[in-house]
Amino acid sequence: MTPCHTKYDIRYTKYGIRTMKELEIIEQIRKKAGKPGGDVIAGIGDDCAVLKYSKEKYLLWSTDMLVEGTHFIVPDAGYKKIGRKAVAVNISDIASMGGIPRFITVSIGAPGPFRSRGFKSLYNGIEEVCEEFGVKLVGGDINRSEKLVIDISIIGTVEKNRLTKRSGARAGDKILITGPVRDGRKDHFGFIPRVKEARYLTSRYRITSMIDVSDGISLDIGRICDASDVGCSIYSGHIPLSRGLSLEDALYYGESFELMFTMSARECDKLLSGKRGKHGFYVIGDILRRKKGRRLTGENGKVSVLEGRGFSHLS
Amino acid sequence: MTPCHTKYDIRYTKYGIRTMKELEIIEQIRKKAGKPGGDVIAGIGDDCAVLKYSKEKYLLWSTDMLVEGTHFIVPDAGYKKIGRKAVAVNISDIASMGGIPRFITVSIGAPGPFRSRGFKSLYNGIEEVCEEFGVKLVGGDINRSEKLVIDISIIGTVEKNRLTKRSGARAGDKILITGPVRDGRKDHFGFIPRVKEARYLTSRYRITSMIDVSDGISLDIGRICDASDVGCSIYSGHIPLSRGLSLEDALYYGESFELMFTMSARECDKLLSGKRGKHGFYVIGDILRRKKGRRLTGENGKVSVLEGRGFSHLS
Repeated sequence: MTPCHTKYDIRYTKYGIRTMKELEIIEQIRKKAGKPGGDVIAGIGDDCAVLKYSKEKYLLWSTDMLVEGTHFIVPDAGYKKIGRKAVAVNISDIASMGGIPRFITVSIGAPGPFRSRGFKSLYNGIEEVCEEFGVKLVGGDINRSEKLVIDISIIGTVEKNRLTKRSGARAGDKILITGPVRDGRKDHFGFIPRVKEARYLTSRYRITSMIDVSDGISLDIGRICDASDVGCSIYSGHIPLSRGLSLEDALYYGESFELMFTMSARECDKLLSGKRGKHGFYVIGDILRRKKGRRLTGENGKVSVLEGRGFSHLS
Repeated sequence: MTPCHTKYDIRYTKYGIRTMKELEIIEQIRKKAGKPGGDVIAGIGDDCAVLKYSKEKYLLWSTDMLVEGTHFIVPDAGYKKIGRKAVAVNISDIASMGGIPRFITVSIGAPGPFRSRGFKSLYNGIEEVCEEFGVKLVGGDINRSEKLVIDISIIGTVEKNRLTKRSGARAGDKILITGPVRDGRKDHFGFIPRVKEARYLTSRYRITSMIDVSDGISLDIGRICDASDVGCSIYSGHIPLSRGLSLEDALYYGESFELMFTMSARECDKLLSGKRGKHGFYVIGDILRRKKGRRLTGENGKVSVLEGRGFSHLS
């Protein structure tokens, strides 16, 4: 999930709660539209919609929009980087459900001057990351718009037994992350969607829930807690940080795109004692019962409330 | 296809040819990305991408973006109408390939004031048309943006033997349209995507090619001619017009969303002599060999060149 949007599931934003009107409508959409049934295995509330596909597999489907001025500033960001990121956030959505990214469509709204200048770079960025991850561009749409808008829709597939949702975390599970939290303020373009890690994990271990960290650890573990109806404790001293990143930013600022996931303590032992190749996995907390709340445990053992805030551009 | 965009396939716009730069890049995308192969039955160049799905069916996938100021002006258009249209243009894409619309995702970029005011109306419009056509909303994305942008991605299915592309027209085929060309200038919101007509046609007849008329008859028959490598003759006196609509607008202005299709003269006889229920079908021209060019035949029998221009917002 991109760091800057709300897949109909943010309750809180960087600047506080949403307007009641917004919350009400989002709830309305969730209730009416998000219901599984028929060919819909999972609707709104995960990183991807999950649809029936074949005997062995489900179809994963997601959409992410990047808007100039909200998600990037031109010409601060090169167009190639923007193209790359627009695809990468979508690939990350597929990874977070255990799947393989397959196809994208690209819709672009762009001002005239951009269309002759930036087009090629943008598409080069799109192509590059598509090649890297074996994704095919199969359609799209070009429009005139005052500001540059890129909306990418992605289809992936996942074996039925490897589908990982947000809703499977259980009290007693360990919370892990695939790598040091990156500094989204320094560079929010260069992240690598963790498809390999997701495929490695889901092929060998029982992962109970997973999400890509796009709005900060706090907000994203909150989403797992919401979906799984559990509480959690995050150990601040255990969070791996990239160079120069503050704990505050790791917790409450987005743009990392590492995968955060949960598994039983036993499975976790197996993972950490097994051969992990080049993959790094870090235990950063425990899933608790819901009534225990959401906690942040400091290095000195002091427990505080894990605040339900994170990065959002919808304020 | 929406009237106002270019699914990577417009060669000409209302105001003349595109810039070379644009054409070059669109060609580049088509060449690299549009190629069928593997699970891709058809990529760029039709109203939908066609992907492998089940033994009997293909998956149809399309995306259409509407941008404030380009496709609609707020508050001229009510938000409900805009929501309805954003879905309806996508449903029309599925219809034009003979399919059944199934699922949509909705990505929205919206300014703050809209989010509290217009949200509900917009979603009411979306829901209404979804219900009407049995389509399920399964995901989406809400972002901040200066102008309202709605990008809808749609998935449909089609029986393999009912898939109708742009590329199957043959010299000798008749060109037909499903109804009087609507006046997009008066009302470009209220059209009905011709799913029923498409399903009727593909269940009983061999349709050689089909497209939804979104940029005017001339531009859209040009797309069929391009894809099928044929020429055509349109009989201006045979084009059914809605009240007050000029021939000029029917030919060169978009927003009708009737289906234009081709079939052999024999199949056409069967269609016109058979029971058609409430459906209206009008013969408006003939497919010719490519070397015969693209012709407009007037009521007096005078033949002129069918100009390759139509409606585009990408100028």
